[in-house]
Amino acid sequence: MTDLTAAPADLMIETPSWAYGNSGTRFKVFAQQGVPRDPYEKIADAAQVHAFTGAAPTVALHIPWDRVDDYAALTAHARSLDVGIGAINANVFQDDDYMLGSVTNPDPRVRRKATDHLLECVDIMDATGSRDLKLWFSDGTNYPGQDDIRARQDRLAEALEEVYARLGGDQRILLEYKLFEPAFYTMDVPDWGTSLVHCLALGPKATVCVDTGHHAPGTNIEFIVAMLLRAGRLGAFDFNSRFYADDDLMVGAADPFQLFRIMHEVVRGGGLDPATGVAFMLDQCHNIEPKIQGQIRSVMNVQEATAKALLVDAAALKSAQETGDVLGANAVLMDAYNTDVRPLLAEWRTAKGLSADPIAAYRASGYFEKIVAERVGGSQAGWGA
Amino acid sequence: MTDLTAAPADLMIETPSWAYGNSGTRFKVFAQQGVPRDPYEKIADAAQVHAFTGAAPTVALHIPWDRVDDYAALTAHARSLDVGIGAINANVFQDDDYMLGSVTNPDPRVRRKATDHLLECVDIMDATGSRDLKLWFSDGTNYPGQDDIRARQDRLAEALEEVYARLGGDQRILLEYKLFEPAFYTMDVPDWGTSLVHCLALGPKATVCVDTGHHAPGTNIEFIVAMLLRAGRLGAFDFNSRFYADDDLMVGAADPFQLFRIMHEVVRGGGLDPATGVAFMLDQCHNIEPKIQGQIRSVMNVQEATAKALLVDAAALKSAQETGDVLGANAVLMDAYNTDVRPLLAEWRTAKGLSADPIAAYRASGYFEKIVAERVGGSQAGWGA
Amino acid sequence: MTDLTAAPADLMIETPSWAYGNSGTRFKVFAQQGVPRDPYEKIADAAQVHAFTGAAPTVALHIPWDRVDDYAALTAHARSLDVGIGAINANVFQDDDYMLGSVTNPDPRVRRKATDHLLECVDIMDATGSRDLKLWFSDGTNYPGQDDIRARQDRLAEALEEVYARLGGDQRILLEYKLFEPAFYTMDVPDWGTSLVHCLALGPKATVCVDTGHHAPGTNIEFIVAMLLRAGRLGAFDFNSRFYADDDLMVGAADPFQLFRIMHEVVRGGGLDPATGVAFMLDQCHNIEPKIQGQIRSVMNVQEATAKALLVDAAALKSAQETGDVLGANAVLMDAYNTDVRPLLAEWRTAKGLSADPIAAYRASGYFEKIVAERVGGSQAGWGA
Amino acid sequence: MTDLTAAPADLMIETPSWAYGNSGTRFKVFAQQGVPRDPYEKIADAAQVHAFTGAAPTVALHIPWDRVDDYAALTAHARSLDVGIGAINANVFQDDDYMLGSVTNPDPRVRRKATDHLLECVDIMDATGSRDLKLWFSDGTNYPGQDDIRARQDRLAEALEEVYARLGGDQRILLEYKLFEPAFYTMDVPDWGTSLVHCLALGPKATVCVDTGHHAPGTNIEFIVAMLLRAGRLGAFDFNSRFYADDDLMVGAADPFQLFRIMHEVVRGGGLDPATGVAFMLDQCHNIEPKIQGQIRSVMNVQEATAKALLVDAAALKSAQETGDVLGANAVLMDAYNTDVRPLLAEWRTAKGLSADPIAAYRASGYFEKIVAERVGGSQAGWGA
Repeated sequence: MTDLTAAPADLMIETPSWAYGNSGTRFKVFAQQGVPRDPYEKIADAAQVHAFTGAAPTVALHIPWDRVDDYAALTAHARSLDVGIGAINANVFQDDDYMLGSVTNPDPRVRRKATDHLLECVDIMDATGSRDLKLWFSDGTNYPGQDDIRARQDRLAEALEEVYARLGGDQRILLEYKLFEPAFYTMDVPDWGTSLVHCLALGPKATVCVDTGHHAPGTNIEFIVAMLLRAGRLGAFDFNSRFYADDDLMVGAADPFQLFRIMHEVVRGGGLDPATGVAFMLDQCHNIEPKIQGQIRSVMNVQEATAKALLVDAAALKSAQETGDVLGANAVLMDAYNTDVRPLLAEWRTAKGLSADPIAAYRASGYFEKIVAERVGGSQAGWGA
Repeated sequence: MTDLTAAPADLMIETPSWAYGNSGTRFKVFAQQGVPRDPYEKIADAAQVHAFTGAAPTVALHIPWDRVDDYAALTAHARSLDVGIGAINANVFQDDDYMLGSVTNPDPRVRRKATDHLLECVDIMDATGSRDLKLWFSDGTNYPGQDDIRARQDRLAEALEEVYARLGGDQRILLEYKLFEPAFYTMDVPDWGTSLVHCLALGPKATVCVDTGHHAPGTNIEFIVAMLLRAGRLGAFDFNSRFYADDDLMVGAADPFQLFRIMHEVVRGGGLDPATGVAFMLDQCHNIEPKIQGQIRSVMNVQEATAKALLVDAAALKSAQETGDVLGANAVLMDAYNTDVRPLLAEWRTAKGLSADPIAAYRASGYFEKIVAERVGGSQAGWGA
Repeated sequence: MTDLTAAPADLMIETPSWAYGNSGTRFKVFAQQGVPRDPYEKIADAAQVHAFTGAAPTVALHIPWDRVDDYAALTAHARSLDVGIGAINANVFQDDDYMLGSVTNPDPRVRRKATDHLLECVDIMDATGSRDLKLWFSDGTNYPGQDDIRARQDRLAEALEEVYARLGGDQRILLEYKLFEPAFYTMDVPDWGTSLVHCLALGPKATVCVDTGHHAPGTNIEFIVAMLLRAGRLGAFDFNSRFYADDDLMVGAADPFQLFRIMHEVVRGGGLDPATGVAFMLDQCHNIEPKIQGQIRSVMNVQEATAKALLVDAAALKSAQETGDVLGANAVLMDAYNTDVRPLLAEWRTAKGLSADPIAAYRASGYFEKIVAERVGGSQAGWGA
Repeated sequence: MTDLTAAPADLMIETPSWAYGNSGTRFKVFAQQGVPRDPYEKIADAAQVHAFTGAAPTVALHIPWDRVDDYAALTAHARSLDVGIGAINANVFQDDDYMLGSVTNPDPRVRRKATDHLLECVDIMDATGSRDLKLWFSDGTNYPGQDDIRARQDRLAEALEEVYARLGGDQRILLEYKLFEPAFYTMDVPDWGTSLVHCLALGPKATVCVDTGHHAPGTNIEFIVAMLLRAGRLGAFDFNSRFYADDDLMVGAADPFQLFRIMHEVVRGGGLDPATGVAFMLDQCHNIEPKIQGQIRSVMNVQEATAKALLVDAAALKSAQETGDVLGANAVLMDAYNTDVRPLLAEWRTAKGLSADPIAAYRASGYFEKIVAERVGGSQAGWGA
């Protein structure tokens, strides 16, 4: 059996800078106390998540939300807090110019502007040492006939090619897909098939990012994971959970069994091996819950699902599968899922010098009270801003 | 056969004040030119829709977005523009106090505040002569266990009772339901069953409002319409259309056949008779399209669906249904749907002294250019504000 | 804390006679070995489930599949095997006469025939001592216009009234709803709202049956459970699980967390108290897995979900909910869910003189080999027959 | 403007032999009068559809349902009735051996048997002169863990390679995908992405078949059509319509606007040009409606949608799209959709010597009465058999 106290240590989870700021729905962005006022404070919060979990050593940036004058200074700041800069997330959706699209806009001027922003993001990657450029395009149409579906694909391909050509040797594109929202008739990259088609056209440094909240009802996400691992094109996860649409709740909160099944396919396909390059990221909105605690809890949820996936008795599973023992094979999986892995993870934490209960330890640390007191005035640049 | 040139005249459609302001998704509210800066300007825009369609004689208000000091003055303003004030829409979702709910909040102080707002809306109804109080609650929970589902129902019932008791003799409550958003685990009024249960407990002045975008995938909306008409509890429609969730696109834009089927059930159940009290309202967000044109087009879409529904040969349909002629009965319905009713509606407009082509007439009127020039500075209070 | 070793004993789960026969999809009913050839053999199989779980003391019948000449003899047979006859399930969908509906058919002759069958089922209830008449109607339409939605409701109400009047003092109607299949445009009872409307019209002996596989995507089933318990109209569950539509998989197999949430609302609403009259039934199709084992596993899954629900620290949950501690309240629920209750249930079984591992004990019993050898020839009357 | 009276003539629609036999749901296959008892009678019925519509010149076969000793005789029979043999549909789902899969079965013996059946279908193609081998696999799993997702992909790829290698110079594979049913946890080819991945691996003679009823709720089918045309891999349509799942209703019956949008993308992408090789097929189940009439109506529905698509003013649309005129562009599309094209199609039919009203002409022909009288005794081999 897998060494349970060692294995989860392999899984490092990246948290996103924007999770620490206010977020909300179109109806309301509720203001919370102590939210960061600049990228430096976001990184400080992210460092807390790593300090208490030991499993969140990098933080993703969102440009322009996290634009600073001196990326070397920002990177050094992160390093001083024992975390690193992770993926660079391009944002080409929060400018009035992008109302009808960014890289797929019918207007060449807007496309140029959007592509230039993507190239700027690669510059920032060079400055921060980031490996991954995460591209999510809000582009799409709201009404049938509004624009030409195929022409938009051609424009998208053109922009991606230009960005791909600009990538450094170890840099990658992670191309995310999403079924709907903010566009309601078509998204220009609505599903994994579309994302993969573009990645295949680009080359080996282009891979697919699976956001667990971006699928149609009934979609089997772990099947997609298995397909992308088989194709060598699973680049990253954006973890979160949902009951309905892209709810962006804490990963594992809506369907912990699904998260386990996803991690089981990751284990099955070798995705925990760093050599496969699969990045594990959170992408959530803590609209009503405390943000740092929400991130800590999410990291723990991924760890628990992974620990359970590692508990699956692979030999017994294979044997039951090959003999067509439907209930037996399912039981092997469920045995792992039904195991309470929290004691194992507590043991792993203790062995690493961490508190066995990261939430309690964070609550007791006084950090939240400190930032509430300190972070008065100013305003974040971010979600819903 | 129904007199087609007369019948659509019976259908008057209420437009919402908030449709004239900027709206958007959580990702971005795109600013459009010439949007109203106060309720007076919103009403002026609504009056344009009526001027060109002859079918939108009232405008619904949203409180507090449309709060003014002098409702008599606002009503007189509307009257001077040949329109009236319609339903009053309560808003208990855009205040930080409501993060965990309004009338269902676990905190009694917040519940009191929310209920007081509802009572204030009845005061405004008295001042404006409005018949209908439209209640949509964003209340719900995001996480399992977050609050007690049943206790929230009890709190909701308590608030509704207090408001119901405050209603004047001809005033009504329209209780709207919605599957999800902004809450993602439970909404406190997620479906027509929940809304009806509360209406039945309240009394005859409480009826259900059907927003056509607020259902789970696969829900047969016209079935609900038939059920509510049978129960005498269909109070109103909030018309819009959707491909995925609550997209709030122009009614009839996503599935015109569904709109026709809904209007067919309205006709079948007598809902066009003003005595049944069914109110026909638009509730849409024109995120990327011009707002006044969007409303004109939506009114026309409802008129076209209604004209087609009135074309259904009721006797032939009944005969085919009773003899079990599946294809024959379906064909009767499809014959009406496949008819191009635009010439009939053009004729009806011309007979009323309107332009046969409301969109072209509006475009030619110069109104849009005028408001773009005039409405500089100021900011709307509204959606996404 | 609840006495865990005692509590699950309160939950008795009814298994359905049809689960022991062959079943399938429209594409194929795969034949399995050893399936029962008559109702007596079905009851014998059901008795095995009870023998190994101690929690399945009754078996539901399906008429006409389980029609026999002598119900007293059948009941005595069950009794001799230590089980009883449970609910009587009417079947008005497997006769060519019902192509366009049974009690809602436009043809009065067919309606009469269907209603007579329902009355026959009450006769059988008298003979078997059954309390519950479970009514699921496959009635509906495939095409818009095919029949009049409202007229079908009136016909349904008329038939239900006649059956309700025939009920004995302790007998009940359980009215099941289903979103779609086998009808594809409308079902005549598609949702809990429709079912409840009819139950309210009938009287207190009419209650709603919640089949966990009969909802639209995204429907929050535990919310419906809470609403029906609040209204005093939750009559029964038909447990199964689904990934897409009415898949009829083993309960708890697709989303064990949902099953836990459902049982949490049952516990919260007092539904485990026999006085509330909530019946817990399985309704599944074991298309590809061994049937008796599938039922045993399903009973165990319900027990595990219930044990976890009973583990929820109600006082801590209430306290967190009332103070608006979103993450704290959720954590109370998740703590219970994440607990491995299998040791507790094993202890409970051992205390009752059962094997701690019912599946292994059944496998070791030789029963399966015995029926495979004995049940040669004959053909079942049942699903897909 | 397109020559409307000429254009629809280009669109020839293949009808499926199995649509003429009885079909149903898992609950019941209702028997209809006059259904064919062998492949010869099915082809005779298909010939009627062509005789009255002039647009259904080929009929697809389903093997083994339509297995005959002498395919040359069957082909000659078809030719004598003025129709031809179309695609060969393999059936590897109606044998007890396939309970756990056909070409993806864990058992190599079953895989061999299934692949041999596919090769037999190519033999039949050689005998009938068919161009297309349509492959739909019911393969999948019902329970998590039941089998290895990735291993099943490898097995699938292996079988497809063998069949691909066997294809003659002008023969093609059409690989169909389906979200769910009959498998409920995973289908082995659930979406267009999976199908395309396999087609790309096979080579240019492998293309994707889009069944319009095989998608998750909310999927934008016309987007997929545009993507596949762009990739040169759209091989065929299986037309039908659905409200919920794979309802297999008459195409255009559930959402005629969607069908129009699909045909608009076909026109836009050049798919009406026979050189692109896109095949237009019906795949429906007439469970409750007369089958030949149902096919005639379906052919007419596709013709109407195509005629409307051809009416779209491409230049005006392009102009509005390029200038970002959202409402204007949508209006161009809607103008075409709202046009009543039935008179145009009646004119086209008359010009071809057909009745302007195919349904009425068929009804008056006496064919139905004739087959009811003649086809007594015997039983079909087919759906639900």
